[in-house]
Amino acid sequence: MASYEHPYSPRDLQLPGYVPLSLSQIDIVLPYLGSSVVVVAAIWFLSGRFPKLSKTDRLLMCWWAFSGLTHIILEGYFAFVPDFFKKKTPFYLDELWKEYGKGDSRYVSRDSAIVALEGFTAAIEGPACLLVVYAIASRKSYSYILQFAICLGQLYGCMVYFVTSYLDGDNFATSPFYYWAYYVGANGFWVVIATLIAIRSWKKIISVFESGNKKKTK
Amino acid sequence: MASYEHPYSPRDLQLPGYVPLSLSQIDIVLPYLGSSVVVVAAIWFLSGRFPKLSKTDRLLMCWWAFSGLTHIILEGYFAFVPDFFKKKTPFYLDELWKEYGKGDSRYVSRDSAIVALEGFTAAIEGPACLLVVYAIASRKSYSYILQFAICLGQLYGCMVYFVTSYLDGDNFATSPFYYWAYYVGANGFWVVIATLIAIRSWKKIISVFESGNKKKTK
Repeated sequence: MASYEHPYSPRDLQLPGYVPLSLSQIDIVLPYLGSSVVVVAAIWFLSGRFPKLSKTDRLLMCWWAFSGLTHIILEGYFAFVPDFFKKKTPFYLDELWKEYGKGDSRYVSRDSAIVALEGFTAAIEGPACLLVVYAIASRKSYSYILQFAICLGQLYGCMVYFVTSYLDGDNFATSPFYYWAYYVGANGFWVVIATLIAIRSWKKIISVFESGNKKKTK
Repeated sequence: MASYEHPYSPRDLQLPGYVPLSLSQIDIVLPYLGSSVVVVAAIWFLSGRFPKLSKTDRLLMCWWAFSGLTHIILEGYFAFVPDFFKKKTPFYLDELWKEYGKGDSRYVSRDSAIVALEGFTAAIEGPACLLVVYAIASRKSYSYILQFAICLGQLYGCMVYFVTSYLDGDNFATSPFYYWAYYVGANGFWVVIATLIAIRSWKKIISVFESGNKKKTK
């Protein structure tokens, strides 16, 4: 099998059959950002037709739709298409993951912890995120506990992701730029937002229990 | 460094400095079971002095005390004592983990996903389990959401544990006996109980939200 030189770290990583990236960084990042903006704008617009929803609820619906589609489409493709970096006529998502690999080469070397996390995120958390969009819009009683559960899953996933990299030498980025932009930046975004939503959901659940207790003791 | 032949799978696993087990299986398992029975009996007895606690609450307190101490003492020792299998004068917990390694050799080879999971379980989930014992006894409003959170962490940990083993070839047990008794049996226990408690907590939280909604619409 013909093999090209790859851009990943560590340099001695063996990737038989690797086909080099043909798209530029901007050709990969812009369509993702652009389609994310379209999704967020559509959910913001549609959710405005529900008069009872607060702005926070509508923002949360945008986040969950964006997060769910990222989990299902992007991470699902990675998890269930193991030979993405060998495709002779690569598709956009193959190129996206080859690009992301510059921030963390464990994606191209298919580290088993990464595949386990991404498979679970795509198959379970992704659909659950979309269910949250519906649950917020229709004011379901499971809305907060479901958001809390998904946030914990995202945070646990990030914990395993960062700790395994640290334990294995933290040498999987092509350069400091990719380390900070892709490995820390893209994932840090989920850590921060999942933490905020988890705290908000926890507080809401506690407050409902407390108001229930107060009613009982009256 | 003198190295002895090890009992683990795969047979070509390199373990420089490995010191053979000196305790028998029964010498390892009995003290763990015995001290667990003591903990469970003590919590059952003490919780009986709280007149408002149901039998289910008391059983849950026993489980969380047992689970928390297992996480902190056993799993904490594994996570933070990397050279346990090389100790020339091994202590009980060194022997326990060398024995468990027969069910999953990734514990002696210190697979990074296992160390990440166990470190998190010991440092975060273990103390949280003990907090649940207190929360149930003092009927705190965060009792259910905390139990739900820990159960999800335990289940996510088990998911990563089993899926990474499967992806890496599922060839880490010395024999089918150790595979089923240690790898599947001991962990399956946590999967089943965490699932049951997670479902119970979810239902309880939903029911509190629903009774709140009914009051509002009255």
